[in-house]
Amino acid sequence: MTETAHPAVSAEQAGIEQALTDQVVASFDGTPDPRLRQLMQALTRHLHAFIREVRLTEEEWNTAIEFLTAAGHITDDRRQEFILLSDVLGASMQTIAVNNEAVPGAERAATEATVFGPFFVDDAPEIPIGGDIAGGAHGQPCWVEGTVTDTRGNPIPGARIEVWEADDEGFYDVQYTDGRVAGRAHLYSDEEGRYAFWGLTPTPYPIPHDGPVGKMLAATNRSPVRASHLHFMVTAPGLRTLVTHIFVQGDPQIEIGDSVFGVKDSLIKDFDVQHAGTPTPDGRALGGDWARTRFDIVLAPAGA
Amino acid sequence: MTETAHPAVSAEQAGIEQALTDQVVASFDGTPDPRLRQLMQALTRHLHAFIREVRLTEEEWNTAIEFLTAAGHITDDRRQEFILLSDVLGASMQTIAVNNEAVPGAERAATEATVFGPFFVDDAPEIPIGGDIAGGAHGQPCWVEGTVTDTRGNPIPGARIEVWEADDEGFYDVQYTDGRVAGRAHLYSDEEGRYAFWGLTPTPYPIPHDGPVGKMLAATNRSPVRASHLHFMVTAPGLRTLVTHIFVQGDPQIEIGDSVFGVKDSLIKDFDVQHAGTPTPDGRALGGDWARTRFDIVLAPAGA
Repeated sequence: MTETAHPAVSAEQAGIEQALTDQVVASFDGTPDPRLRQLMQALTRHLHAFIREVRLTEEEWNTAIEFLTAAGHITDDRRQEFILLSDVLGASMQTIAVNNEAVPGAERAATEATVFGPFFVDDAPEIPIGGDIAGGAHGQPCWVEGTVTDTRGNPIPGARIEVWEADDEGFYDVQYTDGRVAGRAHLYSDEEGRYAFWGLTPTPYPIPHDGPVGKMLAATNRSPVRASHLHFMVTAPGLRTLVTHIFVQGDPQIEIGDSVFGVKDSLIKDFDVQHAGTPTPDGRALGGDWARTRFDIVLAPAGA
Repeated sequence: MTETAHPAVSAEQAGIEQALTDQVVASFDGTPDPRLRQLMQALTRHLHAFIREVRLTEEEWNTAIEFLTAAGHITDDRRQEFILLSDVLGASMQTIAVNNEAVPGAERAATEATVFGPFFVDDAPEIPIGGDIAGGAHGQPCWVEGTVTDTRGNPIPGARIEVWEADDEGFYDVQYTDGRVAGRAHLYSDEEGRYAFWGLTPTPYPIPHDGPVGKMLAATNRSPVRASHLHFMVTAPGLRTLVTHIFVQGDPQIEIGDSVFGVKDSLIKDFDVQHAGTPTPDGRALGGDWARTRFDIVLAPAGA
């Protein structure tokens, strides 16, 4: 790909810059693995195109080195600043987009994917259909129900549905230091592809913003807050694994902007608040308001 | 700039991906500082174009996060893996290229710039013209002489010339833990713009390659070795500061490839080896072989 030279640059200078890019690209010609070669050469071209287009100053280059260094130093087993960086630059969502291509001509559109996030854990407890994922997490109880089908509308029995979410303080269980397991579970769809569980009505929370990524968001007048959401990961044999969230219709953060660009219109759901005393779907007695929502899940074919 | 969609991607899918890029670009619209806005929006466009072009897999994205994390964790006050990364991707040299544009129509071409490197220190000792920078560093003595002029050929008296280099083990003084100051000094050009000093004939050495950058070089069959070089930084009022090296004609690493892309043809100099007993320019008595080279320095106008 030929890069567009900056208009103020002479042909001689543009030639010098292009020759350097070509030299670096050629340095990867001997890479034994062809995919690694492709990745390094494309990375080189795009990185150089960025530097040339913006005419990056040496002071700005220094700032970039300092930013990456600070991101590395704040990153540990519990904090991952490089994932946050990828998230707030939309790189995580773009990677998801290229790995979850729209399936043309499907009778039902496959449910859209969104960011995985850093808070999934592998060994969340199993609950029966209609069980409660809260495990002591505080928040407004929310009945979530729906179906799992393929893109032709066939119900998918036995689909594994992992769900996880923050409590009403905006924290996931793993962000507490007491080892609690709360606000997460897995369950399986029934013979007609149906599922239901009690969760919590999601509330907005900021991504960790006391580090270099937070400083960047502040300097660019961007909100660190994520739109309220409930995570799903749905797996079934022969179908593409779906990692997604549902979002809350009316959450003002959707207009302000989800800090990691995870919102898709198709994933915004009505969470209908029910006044205290309204009978619950399963006869559970609740002392206060509760909410209910519906999320029908459509899985793409594997390999699509 | 419109990005070229991957040929195998449907128009619908390409539209989804472009819409995401546009959304992230727009999220920076409110950045108060226009330069920061430009940088973040260009970074977003080029980063997304890379992900879309190579169809980055989620596993590759994970590898990239792990690479950056490892680079951050090996970086400390003495080791800077992100600068190494920038260097081996040619990003450092490209930044230098855009900040040291060729001066069109100059009577004498300004001396080309190259990478600064991590081994400069501010307070190197002053030596007189003809003095020795070695300070105990081991290596073959080398007489270096030349002139400093502007691009019209006018001699520049009083130019400050900083020089620094590795010893014949391939280490700079600051890489030893004993606090030595060796292989570095500064001096000033005389009334006719002339300078001369005793240094060491440069020898090749690898950049630190026991970290993630070294692993990347190994996986891509690239040499971590830098072509033999001697660093210069030359400053004079009204003229553009020059940061450069000279390289050794015949050094095989020039053909193999300098690991940081610092070599320019105009910076490769003859280092003529003189047999033991050959009279030295200043009458210094030396027990063995020595070398001599010439480097005439041309400084561009400031702001060019």
